Amino acid sequence: MKHQVPVQLRFNDTDALGHVNNSTYFSFYDLGKSEYFAAVRGNDNFFSQKIDIVVAHVEVDFIEPIFLTDRIAVETGVSHIGTKSLILEQRIVDLRTGQIKCKGSTTMVGFDFDKNITIPISQEWRDAIEKYEERKF
Amino acid sequence: MKHQVPVQLRFNDTDALGHVNNSTYFSFYDLGKSEYFAAVRGNDNFFSQKIDIVVAHVEVDFIEPIFLTDRIAVETGVSHIGTKSLILEQRIVDLRTGQIKCKGSTTMVGFDFDKNITIPISQEWRDAIEKYEERKF
Amino acid sequence: MKHQVPVQLRFNDTDALGHVNNSTYFSFYDLGKSEYFAAVRGNDNFFSQKIDIVVAHVEVDFIEPIFLTDRIAVETGVSHIGTKSLILEQRIVDLRTGQIKCKGSTTMVGFDFDKNITIPISQEWRDAIEKYEERKF
Amino acid sequence: MKHQVPVQLRFNDTDALGHVNNSTYFSFYDLGKSEYFAAVRGNDNFFSQKIDIVVAHVEVDFIEPIFLTDRIAVETGVSHIGTKSLILEQRIVDLRTGQIKCKGSTTMVGFDFDKNITIPISQEWRDAIEKYEERKF
Repeated sequence: MKHQVPVQLRFNDTDALGHVNNSTYFSFYDLGKSEYFAAVRGNDNFFSQKIDIVVAHVEVDFIEPIFLTDRIAVETGVSHIGTKSLILEQRIVDLRTGQIKCKGSTTMVGFDFDKNITIPISQEWRDAIEKYEERKF
Repeated sequence: MKHQVPVQLRFNDTDALGHVNNSTYFSFYDLGKSEYFAAVRGNDNFFSQKIDIVVAHVEVDFIEPIFLTDRIAVETGVSHIGTKSLILEQRIVDLRTGQIKCKGSTTMVGFDFDKNITIPISQEWRDAIEKYEERKF
Repeated sequence: MKHQVPVQLRFNDTDALGHVNNSTYFSFYDLGKSEYFAAVRGNDNFFSQKIDIVVAHVEVDFIEPIFLTDRIAVETGVSHIGTKSLILEQRIVDLRTGQIKCKGSTTMVGFDFDKNITIPISQEWRDAIEKYEERKF
Repeated sequence: MKHQVPVQLRFNDTDALGHVNNSTYFSFYDLGKSEYFAAVRGNDNFFSQKIDIVVAHVEVDFIEPIFLTDRIAVETGVSHIGTKSLILEQRIVDLRTGQIKCKGSTTMVGFDFDKNITIPISQEWRDAIEKYEERKF
């Protein structure tokens, strides 16, 4: 995956088991996702534009625990674009060892928040992602 | 203080030191505050109404750690209403032992979010709080 | 599912889209999971005992947004126990309307934290879950 | 203050009011504090060493809201070292405008976690802070 964001860990990301809490991983994936979309669309911030896609399904494999002293990054790429949905592949990697801590995939669907209905993935998204990923879907 | 909300602790409220993370306390105070205001104003939910007060200053004494197995509650009351501000006193108590885990005070100021300026505390707030607290400020 | 925990929402569970942030859902599932295990094992708190199972895989379908004014609960049950793993089914329901907001399944594997190796699901877990769920796996 | 850490904002740091939630600020201060102590003590990570100081009191002034599109940093310095306590001054600044978003001070006390008693601030802390801050307290 060509998109990678180093994650700044915070002490309260940990829990009483002594490592980063599982539910915190999803905020790392969110971070990767929004920076990826900003990179793809050439915007400074994904959330400053009109949102027309929404998370429908998430699958995550927890492989190794993340410790506060680890240096990690989130990697993100699109693996599939369908008519009404796209699939993002993501993983959290240890920047020192290359170890994969966690990997996941997220299905996002086109959504019109005003009408509250699913819509096709826009051509703008399709073009921007194909250009960024340098391949056709 | 006559207003008390039991707090439902979550595992990710803890940190690697083995007890509830200090920064999480502020979300407990927030919870107490919003439920207090809802009780005072007779609304189901504080945040469903137009917000016209804002937090300006917070002071907190951390007295005892909170563990995941503790049963705690947040207690909230108003101690002062001035022209443009009011002061909330809050504490987190152990429901089994009565021990005070943490206490704090929050200064809130009247605020017009449309005009982005401080405004006087409204007569509605004053009346509602005086009625709830059964005293004059 | 016979196990249900009402969730106390906090204002900072919301995000700038105006509803509960997706990553927060996982702390609700955690809450359901730990209370379920405590109920199954007859302990006051799951995390006060030695932990010998760990989350390996999570799948979640996001169906409807959760708003701060919603009254929600997490429902939890075990659907499968294998040699080295068990599967938890969970969903977040709207207590007023019965609507399912989100549903997910979690694969947990037996784990020895001292030796850092996967182990079989213990007979104690098997017995306790079968008794609680009133069926054989 | 000579110590500054840029903060990587996450989407779930925001709340339904559209800006960074007040309680999240405390995790930013925590981040500044732990990186400051690591810099002062020359360690890679503050939390990998034995903890002998603990937060007793926090005071914070909320000055301007923080938005997800802001570029912010936490600045940290010690303003006072007494026999049993030290005071940290911190502020959150906008890296583009120099605007101070929030400022606070934290009183930390020497603490022996094994004996559960307050202790004097160690000479090691005193020396390390005086060297880092280039002044006597």
